[in-house]
Amino acid sequence: MYRVIVANKAVLTPWEVSGKIDYDNLVEKFGTKPLNHGDLDRMRDHSGRFHFMLRRGVFYSHRDLDKILDHHDRGGKFSLYTGRGPSGPVHLGHLIPWIFTKHLQDTYGSKLLFQFTDDEKMLLKEDLDETITSHWVHENALDLMALGFDPDNTEFIVNMRHASKLFPIALKVAKKITGSTMRAVFGFNDQSNLGMMFFPSMQAAPCFLESERAGEPVPCLIPAGIDQDPYWRLTRDIARKLGYPKPAQIHGRMLPGLTGTAKMSSSQPETAIYMTDVPELVEKKIEYANVPEDRANCPLFQFHYFLLTESDEEVEWIRDACTSNRRSCLECKIELAEDVNRFLKAHRRRKKLIGKSVETMLE
Amino acid sequence: MYRVIVANKAVLTPWEVSGKIDYDNLVEKFGTKPLNHGDLDRMRDHSGRFHFMLRRGVFYSHRDLDKILDHHDRGGKFSLYTGRGPSGPVHLGHLIPWIFTKHLQDTYGSKLLFQFTDDEKMLLKEDLDETITSHWVHENALDLMALGFDPDNTEFIVNMRHASKLFPIALKVAKKITGSTMRAVFGFNDQSNLGMMFFPSMQAAPCFLESERAGEPVPCLIPAGIDQDPYWRLTRDIARKLGYPKPAQIHGRMLPGLTGTAKMSSSQPETAIYMTDVPELVEKKIEYANVPEDRANCPLFQFHYFLLTESDEEVEWIRDACTSNRRSCLECKIELAEDVNRFLKAHRRRKKLIGKSVETMLE
Repeated sequence: MYRVIVANKAVLTPWEVSGKIDYDNLVEKFGTKPLNHGDLDRMRDHSGRFHFMLRRGVFYSHRDLDKILDHHDRGGKFSLYTGRGPSGPVHLGHLIPWIFTKHLQDTYGSKLLFQFTDDEKMLLKEDLDETITSHWVHENALDLMALGFDPDNTEFIVNMRHASKLFPIALKVAKKITGSTMRAVFGFNDQSNLGMMFFPSMQAAPCFLESERAGEPVPCLIPAGIDQDPYWRLTRDIARKLGYPKPAQIHGRMLPGLTGTAKMSSSQPETAIYMTDVPELVEKKIEYANVPEDRANCPLFQFHYFLLTESDEEVEWIRDACTSNRRSCLECKIELAEDVNRFLKAHRRRKKLIGKSVETMLE
Repeated sequence: MYRVIVANKAVLTPWEVSGKIDYDNLVEKFGTKPLNHGDLDRMRDHSGRFHFMLRRGVFYSHRDLDKILDHHDRGGKFSLYTGRGPSGPVHLGHLIPWIFTKHLQDTYGSKLLFQFTDDEKMLLKEDLDETITSHWVHENALDLMALGFDPDNTEFIVNMRHASKLFPIALKVAKKITGSTMRAVFGFNDQSNLGMMFFPSMQAAPCFLESERAGEPVPCLIPAGIDQDPYWRLTRDIARKLGYPKPAQIHGRMLPGLTGTAKMSSSQPETAIYMTDVPELVEKKIEYANVPEDRANCPLFQFHYFLLTESDEEVEWIRDACTSNRRSCLECKIELAEDVNRFLKAHRRRKKLIGKSVETMLE
């Protein structure tokens, strides 16, 4: 059953719906901390509102967020860091952490470092060259900026073209990682190529970039899916060895896929609605979406819950109309398609307005 | 015995003198080719003179030099590539390949890519930071340019600050190297750090840089000590896999150390005369240099032979004065110290003339 909060302070956990991921278990397994009322109160006080993704537990776990908030309360700055592999269009699932990151930038005035890991994409896929990744870098950067990030407080780092920014730090990181650590943490073996083995050092580097630039500790907060936590644990360990602040994380849950998978994913295109999908395609995708017998596990409801419907009353109405059989699946799907298309249309309009101005940000 | 050529075509091999390195054996062991009369004739024809380092067999072995010369004869361009780890002052031994590289640039109009491997130095030594390596980058770049390289045809690549130039190519290289290859070629093990393991890919990248920039194959020739050959064999293998021309090499012998070691080396400062040594220090170093009982192995003669005395008649006179006991060791040492100080003084004057203009080359 979905429990939606109307009261400010309650944090609900309707995560049984995703079916395949036990989010509470991940907190325990990874040893992260659930966001508690104290954390949520502080963030609400800082921003002046209780962001729906916090209210609904979309972001629900953390490492050292309390230290970041303490630092802020002492008047300190911290950076935000997230990123993406530029190998294709952005889908709705990608937007969840980005929208929340935008909220954090608005609240804390933090600089966002956004990394495009075109290097990793090149290493993973034989057919991806820089012409292709450059196209997606530009397109994806527009998608990010269309969410309203402050262009004066957002820095894109495209690994291949901006390697000089990261390489000196990445080397310091790599100096602290042995082959056997890589084996243990990432499952590499003797036949793994050195590019893939070096890549995590490039991904760690932005955590420390603002500290290097400032010549004093500038903590870094990473809003990301909790599935990425094991990676950042290694970075935290290296931070300690290099004398940088350990990167903090705030962990989110993943938007389920259209087919009921635990996570909307580009590697399974049938699970995803892309920002570039035309209205007819969105309608078709949603029309044919898997709706489970057990309505409590319906992925379509999650689209409202995670992303589209900020009003708790409205979300509650949608849930209730479904579980009480007041509305058919078809009706629900038609309305969701309309909502998604409205969302995509507004997004594309904002992308158009940004237009060429993103190019100077990517130089 | 030293055999010095006065005739143009003979190539002499007085290399028994270095004692500790069997240079002929290295050719066989590494599977390189000795420079033959045909190669030497072609290079002499191209330059209009028979460079003393070729005449004397200071450079004496190669891989694919004939292909480079064929390419030149067809009107093609090739690049030259060498470099240095900027951790201290340059000594006389460093100048041998540089002076020869300058001759190649003059002859073939080739662009020189000169790499400063500040990254490797940082990885190897705990106490070297970028402030220190930057100092030596500047100082060593002056030493290089003081030899007369064409500033419009010479490009410095300081790995840490110019990583963006190399990183995309280095990643392609790293993609073709496995952990087990690194173990086999460089002796790395499970406890080796990833920075050191990635470094050879950064060192390989300049071999392919001009090809990448031109969008067509631009061969690369590496003038270097033959001791570095095993490294370049791996790069040649990767070139094949990536579709770049295999980097060619022309291999030199090493200037012996003052103490009679096979190689003047900064890791044994007592073996070296640095470009920064004051005249009195040079005199002292030479005065106290090891002169072997067996005069045929005198390292001091090699200073004339490798570097200071281009005239074959003069070199022959020096040798003869020694072996016939016409001149004492002390007299010989005093004259060598004068020659070295004259050489260093002229070098420092040229460095001064270049002055700040090297800074723009390093930006």
